[in-house]
Amino acid sequence: MNRDAMIEAVRSEMPERRWNHTLGVMETSIILAERFGADPVKAEQAAILHDVAKYWQTSRMESIIRQEGLPADLLEFDKELWHAPVGAFVAEQLFKVTDLDVLDAIRYHTSGREGMTLMDKIVCLADYMEPGRDFPAVHKIREIAQHSLEKALVAGFDSTISYLLQQGKRIYPLTVAARNDLLLFIREAEQ
Amino acid sequence: MNRDAMIEAVRSEMPERRWNHTLGVMETSIILAERFGADPVKAEQAAILHDVAKYWQTSRMESIIRQEGLPADLLEFDKELWHAPVGAFVAEQLFKVTDLDVLDAIRYHTSGREGMTLMDKIVCLADYMEPGRDFPAVHKIREIAQHSLEKALVAGFDSTISYLLQQGKRIYPLTVAARNDLLLFIREAEQ
Repeated sequence: MNRDAMIEAVRSEMPERRWNHTLGVMETSIILAERFGADPVKAEQAAILHDVAKYWQTSRMESIIRQEGLPADLLEFDKELWHAPVGAFVAEQLFKVTDLDVLDAIRYHTSGREGMTLMDKIVCLADYMEPGRDFPAVHKIREIAQHSLEKALVAGFDSTISYLLQQGKRIYPLTVAARNDLLLFIREAEQ
Repeated sequence: MNRDAMIEAVRSEMPERRWNHTLGVMETSIILAERFGADPVKAEQAAILHDVAKYWQTSRMESIIRQEGLPADLLEFDKELWHAPVGAFVAEQLFKVTDLDVLDAIRYHTSGREGMTLMDKIVCLADYMEPGRDFPAVHKIREIAQHSLEKALVAGFDSTISYLLQQGKRIYPLTVAARNDLLLFIREAEQ
């Protein structure tokens, strides 16, 4: 599917407000890819598709998670996490994306994971800091992203974990593993 | 070993300031055991021994973790976590404690774990809130502990995780698993 057709198909899956967020993630992913040496075309493709399943019904996402063998522990955690692996499934099955770098960046854009690739980091960070985002830590995250992808992403995960603490909600273990791993990566890079 | 001999032996392993902390944990463990229906004699024994290895040299703790097959992932995390499983090993080998409830309460008093027993919860919470403790959340934790062991312990883990976020330190996964599990326990108890 060409870029324009993909954009139109994804746009039809969400309200205008969310499509504006996707435009922001596309723009930011390209900027970050150019800044940190990744392929901007792939980064934009992952950004276009990252929220494709965001407005799908819970029951539809749950069916896909169960039937397609996606990580079942997701079902015990916040539904906000579900659209990312379901989105990767949709990208592969319906949009015929075959590039694993793109598929994984969609799959892990909300949770992160241990051993995040450059593309995973770019799309996940772009989702935190695109121009439409407005939450207490966002200015700090954008500032750190001027020089460090990993440190900015840690600041993003910190804001998510702080929010879950304040709300008395459970923390998805993969996010903690992602943050721990990024801290090790940063420490090793500075040695 | 009788109670008095155990107290003298443990006391000799640490500076006076830390022994005062242990006295606080003993007193608080008994109060919590009586409040929440656990055996106060066992709770006190776990409290006496909980920090027995706290002032051991790092290299000595590391040897025990490696040689005795204690969880090796500990070595990748903060040294503050090591004395708990090493303490359980010492309690069993040197103090001849055989009660698994007591040994596990020592083993998990710093990290927590998924499926914490009543005794685990009591000693871990007593360690957070004994009268000598002074940190921002401690008054709130003591207040919650008047009526809920689990909610107070979540508040304790929240303070630990917040501290690690602020310090840019990694979070031990077992602590997140413990907190997640307690939140489920609380939710199910309220249904």
